[in-house]
Amino acid sequence: MSDTKTVRFGLLGCIRFASKFVRTVTQSSNAVIIAISDPSLETAKTFAAANNLSPETVTIYGSYEELLNDENVDAVYLTMPVTQRGKWAVTSAEKKKHVLVEKPPAQDSTELEKIVEACESNGVQFMDGTIWLHHQRTVKIRDTMFDSGLLGDVRHMYSTMTTPVPEQVLERLTKEAMGLAGAIGELGWYPIGAALWAMSYQMPISVRALPSSVSTNSVGTILSCTASLEFGSTATATAIVHCSFLSQLSTDLAISGSKGSIQMNDYVIPYKEDTAWFEYTSGAKFVDMHIGWNVTPEKVTVDCGGTAETQEAMMLREFTRLVEGIKRGDLEADRRWAEISKKTQLVVDAVKKSVDIGCEVVHL
Amino acid sequence: MSDTKTVRFGLLGCIRFASKFVRTVTQSSNAVIIAISDPSLETAKTFAAANNLSPETVTIYGSYEELLNDENVDAVYLTMPVTQRGKWAVTSAEKKKHVLVEKPPAQDSTELEKIVEACESNGVQFMDGTIWLHHQRTVKIRDTMFDSGLLGDVRHMYSTMTTPVPEQVLERLTKEAMGLAGAIGELGWYPIGAALWAMSYQMPISVRALPSSVSTNSVGTILSCTASLEFGSTATATAIVHCSFLSQLSTDLAISGSKGSIQMNDYVIPYKEDTAWFEYTSGAKFVDMHIGWNVTPEKVTVDCGGTAETQEAMMLREFTRLVEGIKRGDLEADRRWAEISKKTQLVVDAVKKSVDIGCEVVHL
Repeated sequence: MSDTKTVRFGLLGCIRFASKFVRTVTQSSNAVIIAISDPSLETAKTFAAANNLSPETVTIYGSYEELLNDENVDAVYLTMPVTQRGKWAVTSAEKKKHVLVEKPPAQDSTELEKIVEACESNGVQFMDGTIWLHHQRTVKIRDTMFDSGLLGDVRHMYSTMTTPVPEQVLERLTKEAMGLAGAIGELGWYPIGAALWAMSYQMPISVRALPSSVSTNSVGTILSCTASLEFGSTATATAIVHCSFLSQLSTDLAISGSKGSIQMNDYVIPYKEDTAWFEYTSGAKFVDMHIGWNVTPEKVTVDCGGTAETQEAMMLREFTRLVEGIKRGDLEADRRWAEISKKTQLVVDAVKKSVDIGCEVVHL
Repeated sequence: MSDTKTVRFGLLGCIRFASKFVRTVTQSSNAVIIAISDPSLETAKTFAAANNLSPETVTIYGSYEELLNDENVDAVYLTMPVTQRGKWAVTSAEKKKHVLVEKPPAQDSTELEKIVEACESNGVQFMDGTIWLHHQRTVKIRDTMFDSGLLGDVRHMYSTMTTPVPEQVLERLTKEAMGLAGAIGELGWYPIGAALWAMSYQMPISVRALPSSVSTNSVGTILSCTASLEFGSTATATAIVHCSFLSQLSTDLAISGSKGSIQMNDYVIPYKEDTAWFEYTSGAKFVDMHIGWNVTPEKVTVDCGGTAETQEAMMLREFTRLVEGIKRGDLEADRRWAEISKKTQLVVDAVKKSVDIGCEVVHL
């Protein structure tokens, strides 16, 4: 089986969430999982059984080192806690494995720099697992709204990632498990990344956490935070990003421009796998006497080819396209994905720093 | 005609926008316009002709004083620029006219207090023209989401009112015409009011304008501003309010709670007059493997009885109900509407103050 599949993956970490990646690889035409690993061999075995990974085609390791020494493995997917990602991503690169790492890829920018440098000096591809960037809806919005001029200049953005955690679990969200940035890294990564994406990766000039938006648990892990990001030396654009473990699930993205606006409430993970939509208005104004609008929101629906072109599938397609090219010697590693990760991490760090210094402004 | 209609209105100010009120009164069963006035008699005459107000039933005055001396007038609707509303609302109350005044009703809280005091001491009803509070959708959201527990505790709110003004007009937005608070009064009134409404009129403990969100024209009129409102002594709830003359029309309201969330993008003036809707989710979570949601947004549609129960009609109905009751001696003036206005104005003032002191925190 593995002969006909080009990119041979190994998993570093067998958490339940990794099942999604297994499913995506299994459904793909050019990737295969040939090894999995976990510090607990028992966990790895249970994961294999639960995900129909046959010991005949998949080697099960009780340590990450062993998997990284497996010369048949081309690429690794890292899902261990964020506090361990830096170390293992660097080791993976040194072992010449292409690196696909869950977000946030590191605890801070210093650590991320080390990962990216290791990948670059070893000629392997780096990518973090921010799947929504790969969704066809994301591409469609870029075409429909930005490139066409329907949106105009971005003036204001609002983006959230909130997901509730039961009260008894909140206290167990330690910095050891969650990383120093807590919710800002785990959740804020998305709205911060969305704002950067909307600004075509222009960096903000300053960020500030909003004082009473910040809450922490008794061990000091950040559980919620709202921050403002300011782009441009005058008031060209402002983004509000909000992340929280204390609210119901929300993944809102609203982008307001000089000519139009875009809304969706499921930008991180679409409501449904097979289709996704966004709404926009352009040239909107109140009609005469202000008794209504001249337009109602246009709904643009993107078909995901049944479920063949989910955002996970599209991410895998891009990653394997690059890995195949590098393996064939046709391509060099594409640094764009590392650049996106690094910019996102820099802003995550700046928001965290603002929290640390009493919600003062942090200049970038 | 006026015998069968109970509340006899006079207009103070004949701007084009007042046509909407004329239309609403004309369609009502218990109100009638018997007089209009404008400092320019010519403007008043043109308005009368344009709005089919016959000189046989409507007296046309070339000054506000004359109209206020007309003893047949029960109630007045004030649409002159905000800088003149304070003076004329007080005079109206002193002349025993019930006062319906466009928003913002005053330039600041001090002025609003004077209006409200004049209304109370003269036993007349006060109401500002924040129409969306009267929409049946607003009532429906309160029932469906807040009272039922579907929303849970409010954690985070986001609300906007942005409407573009042509560049050559921006410079002409003087403080004389717009009031000292500029866009914060003219537009910010809505998102600030929406946040207060969502918090059941609990006041924020502090507000802060976001530095680079603030822009002004060359004469110092505030053209755009984003501010955060903080409710409760710990991080109980945060609201982000955004107003601007530099962005396309947007009137977004998103309320995120511990159990559910509500979204709409036309809370100020619904897209259509005859119907309006909002969307919500409650108990939302990602499904197994995070490949979608367990719910999609529920759309709740409110029928406005064709156009018989528009928000304007509902506001007029409430105002005339109170005026009729007071006239009959059954009711006292309802102070609730003044309380809502005063709280909204206090927060508008606080945001304006934050802008004035370099976007520092203002405690309330």
